Amino acid sequence: MLKPVLLTAERIKSLKIQGARNVAIAAIKAIEASAKETKAKTKKEFIRELFKAKRILFATRETEPLMRNALRLIVAQIESSDKKKIVELVEIISQASKMFLKDLENSKKRIAEIGAKRIRNDSIILTHCHSSTVTHLLKKAKTEGKNFKIICTETRPVFQGRRTAKEMLETGIKTTLLVDSAARFYMNRVDLVIVGADAITSEGNVINKIGTSLVALAAHEARTPFYIVTELLKFDPSTMYGDYEKIEERSPKEIWKDPPKNLTIKNPAFDITRRNFIHGIICEEGIIPPHSVIEVIHRKYPWIFS
Amino acid sequence: MLKPVLLTAERIKSLKIQGARNVAIAAIKAIEASAKETKAKTKKEFIRELFKAKRILFATRETEPLMRNALRLIVAQIESSDKKKIVELVEIISQASKMFLKDLENSKKRIAEIGAKRIRNDSIILTHCHSSTVTHLLKKAKTEGKNFKIICTETRPVFQGRRTAKEMLETGIKTTLLVDSAARFYMNRVDLVIVGADAITSEGNVINKIGTSLVALAAHEARTPFYIVTELLKFDPSTMYGDYEKIEERSPKEIWKDPPKNLTIKNPAFDITRRNFIHGIICEEGIIPPHSVIEVIHRKYPWIFS
Amino acid sequence: MLKPVLLTAERIKSLKIQGARNVAIAAIKAIEASAKETKAKTKKEFIRELFKAKRILFATRETEPLMRNALRLIVAQIESSDKKKIVELVEIISQASKMFLKDLENSKKRIAEIGAKRIRNDSIILTHCHSSTVTHLLKKAKTEGKNFKIICTETRPVFQGRRTAKEMLETGIKTTLLVDSAARFYMNRVDLVIVGADAITSEGNVINKIGTSLVALAAHEARTPFYIVTELLKFDPSTMYGDYEKIEERSPKEIWKDPPKNLTIKNPAFDITRRNFIHGIICEEGIIPPHSVIEVIHRKYPWIFS
Amino acid sequence: MLKPVLLTAERIKSLKIQGARNVAIAAIKAIEASAKETKAKTKKEFIRELFKAKRILFATRETEPLMRNALRLIVAQIESSDKKKIVELVEIISQASKMFLKDLENSKKRIAEIGAKRIRNDSIILTHCHSSTVTHLLKKAKTEGKNFKIICTETRPVFQGRRTAKEMLETGIKTTLLVDSAARFYMNRVDLVIVGADAITSEGNVINKIGTSLVALAAHEARTPFYIVTELLKFDPSTMYGDYEKIEERSPKEIWKDPPKNLTIKNPAFDITRRNFIHGIICEEGIIPPHSVIEVIHRKYPWIFS
Amino acid sequence: MLKPVLLTAERIKSLKIQGARNVAIAAIKAIEASAKETKAKTKKEFIRELFKAKRILFATRETEPLMRNALRLIVAQIESSDKKKIVELVEIISQASKMFLKDLENSKKRIAEIGAKRIRNDSIILTHCHSSTVTHLLKKAKTEGKNFKIICTETRPVFQGRRTAKEMLETGIKTTLLVDSAARFYMNRVDLVIVGADAITSEGNVINKIGTSLVALAAHEARTPFYIVTELLKFDPSTMYGDYEKIEERSPKEIWKDPPKNLTIKNPAFDITRRNFIHGIICEEGIIPPHSVIEVIHRKYPWIFS
Amino acid sequence: MLKPVLLTAERIKSLKIQGARNVAIAAIKAIEASAKETKAKTKKEFIRELFKAKRILFATRETEPLMRNALRLIVAQIESSDKKKIVELVEIISQASKMFLKDLENSKKRIAEIGAKRIRNDSIILTHCHSSTVTHLLKKAKTEGKNFKIICTETRPVFQGRRTAKEMLETGIKTTLLVDSAARFYMNRVDLVIVGADAITSEGNVINKIGTSLVALAAHEARTPFYIVTELLKFDPSTMYGDYEKIEERSPKEIWKDPPKNLTIKNPAFDITRRNFIHGIICEEGIIPPHSVIEVIHRKYPWIFS
Repeated sequence: MLKPVLLTAERIKSLKIQGARNVAIAAIKAIEASAKETKAKTKKEFIRELFKAKRILFATRETEPLMRNALRLIVAQIESSDKKKIVELVEIISQASKMFLKDLENSKKRIAEIGAKRIRNDSIILTHCHSSTVTHLLKKAKTEGKNFKIICTETRPVFQGRRTAKEMLETGIKTTLLVDSAARFYMNRVDLVIVGADAITSEGNVINKIGTSLVALAAHEARTPFYIVTELLKFDPSTMYGDYEKIEERSPKEIWKDPPKNLTIKNPAFDITRRNFIHGIICEEGIIPPHSVIEVIHRKYPWIFS
Repeated sequence: MLKPVLLTAERIKSLKIQGARNVAIAAIKAIEASAKETKAKTKKEFIRELFKAKRILFATRETEPLMRNALRLIVAQIESSDKKKIVELVEIISQASKMFLKDLENSKKRIAEIGAKRIRNDSIILTHCHSSTVTHLLKKAKTEGKNFKIICTETRPVFQGRRTAKEMLETGIKTTLLVDSAARFYMNRVDLVIVGADAITSEGNVINKIGTSLVALAAHEARTPFYIVTELLKFDPSTMYGDYEKIEERSPKEIWKDPPKNLTIKNPAFDITRRNFIHGIICEEGIIPPHSVIEVIHRKYPWIFS
Repeated sequence: MLKPVLLTAERIKSLKIQGARNVAIAAIKAIEASAKETKAKTKKEFIRELFKAKRILFATRETEPLMRNALRLIVAQIESSDKKKIVELVEIISQASKMFLKDLENSKKRIAEIGAKRIRNDSIILTHCHSSTVTHLLKKAKTEGKNFKIICTETRPVFQGRRTAKEMLETGIKTTLLVDSAARFYMNRVDLVIVGADAITSEGNVINKIGTSLVALAAHEARTPFYIVTELLKFDPSTMYGDYEKIEERSPKEIWKDPPKNLTIKNPAFDITRRNFIHGIICEEGIIPPHSVIEVIHRKYPWIFS
Repeated sequence: MLKPVLLTAERIKSLKIQGARNVAIAAIKAIEASAKETKAKTKKEFIRELFKAKRILFATRETEPLMRNALRLIVAQIESSDKKKIVELVEIISQASKMFLKDLENSKKRIAEIGAKRIRNDSIILTHCHSSTVTHLLKKAKTEGKNFKIICTETRPVFQGRRTAKEMLETGIKTTLLVDSAARFYMNRVDLVIVGADAITSEGNVINKIGTSLVALAAHEARTPFYIVTELLKFDPSTMYGDYEKIEERSPKEIWKDPPKNLTIKNPAFDITRRNFIHGIICEEGIIPPHSVIEVIHRKYPWIFS
Repeated sequence: MLKPVLLTAERIKSLKIQGARNVAIAAIKAIEASAKETKAKTKKEFIRELFKAKRILFATRETEPLMRNALRLIVAQIESSDKKKIVELVEIISQASKMFLKDLENSKKRIAEIGAKRIRNDSIILTHCHSSTVTHLLKKAKTEGKNFKIICTETRPVFQGRRTAKEMLETGIKTTLLVDSAARFYMNRVDLVIVGADAITSEGNVINKIGTSLVALAAHEARTPFYIVTELLKFDPSTMYGDYEKIEERSPKEIWKDPPKNLTIKNPAFDITRRNFIHGIICEEGIIPPHSVIEVIHRKYPWIFS
Repeated sequence: MLKPVLLTAERIKSLKIQGARNVAIAAIKAIEASAKETKAKTKKEFIRELFKAKRILFATRETEPLMRNALRLIVAQIESSDKKKIVELVEIISQASKMFLKDLENSKKRIAEIGAKRIRNDSIILTHCHSSTVTHLLKKAKTEGKNFKIICTETRPVFQGRRTAKEMLETGIKTTLLVDSAARFYMNRVDLVIVGADAITSEGNVINKIGTSLVALAAHEARTPFYIVTELLKFDPSTMYGDYEKIEERSPKEIWKDPPKNLTIKNPAFDITRRNFIHGIICEEGIIPPHSVIEVIHRKYPWIFS
């Protein structure tokens, strides 16, 4: 019965599905499809299957908080329900999936609305890497008639900054591209830095594309405001209970195709930006200090800790 | 008579001659050759020619302090001499040229000896870009039996870090390569940062490859010692008299070969590392604080200010 | 029916009513008076009138969080009530108004009690501008027998520091007055800085009289504790949803009566002190870190977000 | 009836009972024993006795938050109960005592589990003074097979660091001991600093053995993570309401047995580490930023504020 | 014979002569005039008179380094001369006076030339108080066709910023005026801060109008370059030998004409900006780091230490 | 003939002679005595003996800059002399020895005079460890009628702070003693920190008793001025040429007499205080920034580099 889950898990592992949002959506849909095909006779059996599906999907990535939180929500809904019939449980899963997807969509929209207010006319905004939440926000600001410029770092090794630059140019925003290491050289002219997030930790730190913490350091040195733009569902509860943030090591080939023999190439995908470098997290709840993130999660998504 | 100078100037402009040291050597040799071919009859005429040659060579680059200082030395020698005969003046130029080249060679050797003492056994050294003075120092330390590891940033846009990595591996030094923006992620494990210099300013600041100041900032944040390795003849006296440091803008093509239309690409070749980030300058005079550099120049190379 | 509201709005606009507390009290009383005169027949009509009154009063100032929060409370009470009769609704408004005023009074008293404990014997306290919450606290400490000295900045352009100085002298406290720019010169002798607040933002930053952030910076540099003394009802929920803090521009005449032609005079009334400069907010809830302010508001005044 | 309380109070005062945990346990047991012997006839009388017992035990130490919070819990349970019979009330006290002790035990265990995850293989951990919560955590990490080294400061004046060193050596952990003032000299080699806490304040600051704040400062300068390991029940609610942190002055004899005449010896037992030096508090709730501690307490132990 | 000296001393004391430059010029001229009227018969007598004159003029101000250095130069010239005849000595004084005045004039011109190069097109320059060396520099930059804006602080208590603003407007420079405490609010938009100096100390610190160090602190926080513009002859050699910088206390009436009884008003005229806040000193020698100032003085004005 | 040198070397090695000053004096006297007994026939032979003596004495300590500089001076005098007769050379050594001792004495006196001016009335001075140059300065200030208090750290492991405390009490100065780790707790009340030096490096850093850099860090955090009091002859020229500062490791027994088995005890005698923590060096030349120390040495003691 878990075929849809196994198939999706395979596609996530092989990077056929990419991006926190896409991975989460695929996982939810796989769970939903699997539930519909279930042959479980009792709630107990059904739950056992559900946990198995969760384990399979969790194992596809070292860390992927958005997807994991989606599955946590579904499990929490089933566990807290007093329904017993399988059809009812399948329906609960369907409802929870829809709710999660709708919430995610609303969050994105809401974040864009809130964040767009932070874009001042005639200002210069710097961003690092590519984040669809960030570009959505900037397009929203442009749509509202704000006039501003974007500076993108190219974001080695795989140049996601170029993708950001293209999207910005297509929206009609004046765009400048730099090598990553020029961030400090231009920082004194920048009015605002905004970047996305891959995960948020219980300490209020943010995991994002390698180099983010260096941009944050340069922004801090120049007293330039630095904001994170993200759904709170990127919160990773395992950091709460002591786990270190997972920093994925990617292929050296991304950095140098034909390196000399014996050369060690280190290619961490992310780094950690500490809360004291972050002016605020622009999220579906509004603009909050990163220090309060665990209590905001406790209030808004208590099931994340279950 | 200025043919050798004109030819050399052309080759410098078209980047056929590159690297501060090579440019300086070529310029000196061109001056020497031109002097030997002179048709000047009087000292006055000879000096006029010399100044013309100097102007031509100065104009080949926006800033190139080592070459300029070489020419300043030659001019100073002629001006302070009471010799009058042309053959004598030609001889003075020959002597000055030899002296400068020998001094430069000695400086390099001396810097390597002094700097090699700073390399501790079992330490991790990070460097940015490629500097022959730095690699010379590291090879010297290796030759002396020191056991250490090197971390090289790749140094976008033209990957000089790869050249550094290759040289290090050939010398048998364990070498790791990173993207530039990973410098902060590894900084807490680094024991020492050393980089070269393109120019030194009267305030004691250092002009070097774009990204140097960001590495320095990350080193400062982690209390990791940061040293500049350079000949003092990279001092640029025009900064003394108010000129801003020249930051060359290079071709956007170095960053992105086929960028989208309307994209602005900024490609500054250098940035400025302020003296308060620099523990010391390892130079032919020993290890000095950058704050004292103008007085060291006044004592050791007073003709630079003439 | 909205006559009392319109009259009061006029008096607020023309600065006949001034000070966050006075403005809030006047607005509440105007709403209450208007409600008593209402000719509305249905709850729907009544609420429509109430919203209109709220809009009129909100429009009197660019930002005035205390007054706005008072009106938010009243609206929230009406909306959450299941009462339907007009007389009952009028009564609810009366009750809510009384409650707000009483709460405000209690907060002030409680803040003074809590804050007075922070005043050590034989200490030197520096304050900037005039805040009745601050002077109330200091008088309380004096009444309790604490022996301390006050340093007041004069607070250009309108010298509110003189008012603070007079109040302190009348209470028998030894008082010194400085020009604003002498704050750093004396900071090493200061044991504690306390100032009031005009507004608190969702990030935990504080809007207060121009110069406050400069005093905070100097306190930070000298490791001198810096506290904000304020009711939490100064919290501005619009900052939560992305709005920038409003910084009122006041008349240039306050700075220079007969300036030369063509001179631009900028006269911002406030500046922003970031949360990392603030040791604590002394408020009706106790002494809290500014980083936790949004969750404290969610717990204590949830209707502010409605 | 209060005999057990009086006896225990005496033993706490005379330092026969020492250590936050031991003092709390003794106080609870004394209350429980006293309750069992009560001759009170009415709930009112019973409560009066209970308050008296609380006052007596509070008075044994200037500040001892763990013990005080234990008593606060017991009182809160009695007050919120609608039981009226004495035997029932005695039973409530017994239950509350057991619950508190069990919670304390669970917290310790849970903190060790969470914190042990923070100990990386091949890392160097520095600690100051002796804390059983810290050593418990380190032993747990060792038991789990983690390989790491400990650096202990000796912790003048009474050398608790020696006790930590002994415990670590007994567990088979490689241990180095330093004088306190060598902490900065070794800090660049340290990967993690963890220390215990005597009290937590409402601002998120931590009171711990004298010298802790200096270690924290040196850790901050070197970008070395600094964590507090403690039960949240060390929170001191009186700081919420304005009280300064109590810093006990201990006997000069601890520092110098036969000092010269006229010498003043100051021997503060604790100092205060501000929240901005603390990466996280490792507690029974997980790893939290110190800035959010008051809201975590409000959520988890609301009776502390009663 | 010392009549001109006594008269001039009187006029300096009564503030009829003001400004470091004017005071120095008046003092020199008085010495010169007195020398011409001398009735001394021997060199010994002449020198005794000279020392007396020096003492009288030194005593007119607590500290006035430019004037004092002028007198030091004259005394040094006489002492080092082997001339014996009175007429010859008088002539030496005349020559030394002329030289000093000419040097001062040249310094001012040279500083303007050097400093003008630092003014970039389309930049915003902030200055505090009024300094003729600074305004001279800015006018020079304007004359050279540079297009830039000036922000002046009003500079309480005696509003010298208004004088700066007027001069700037007369030169056709766009000018904005602020209250002193708004300096931080605008600092992020400022490209360069330049201010004058009243004295330079042996540590490389600068004494200037009260508030300068606060502006420097705000510039430092925002990574805005901060330069001192001054003749090196403002160096105060007494700080070399341990004297504290003199900070003149001026009349409270400057701050508040009719203050309440018992109010203490502190009115320090200057504060001290430490060398680490100063990017460079723009002086007649070029742009130098403040750290090297004592060695520059030793090289250029060795007689200052005599 | 080198018997006096060998005997003295032995006594230095076995710590029978201690303290930078005593060691330097003993070494000079041994050289002088040896020279008088020489059997050398030629200047060449004499110089060979002198170098041998220098080598023997250098080898007694890992680093001892004052003694080494004394010997460097004597050697420089002999080498630069054109005298040839042995008796003349012996006389030169005698003269050089006397000069060095007299200079040292004068330096101490001069430092006390200069430094005493820095002690303000009613101020609190903190010092670490024991330095006779520092206590001499403080006694001088007391003698001049200054009224001030001293705070001494005890200075583990061998409690030199107790010696400082005793000397201060004997001079009638109010003295407080702390454990080393309480330095930060009291720093906000301290007006000035002064400490001695064991060596000065070419970068302008200072080697002094372990813990000095931690005191400096705490002073820096609290904006408390921090001064080094030392003769410039403590400058160590080998750091100029790349050598690391030598940090002597002393016996673990100083820290713990009977440590548990397997415990590693690290006992570094010194640490390094970087120039940016040092307001000034109070030396025989006056008060200078540490950044200029190499140029001051070049000017005043050029033979140190020979």
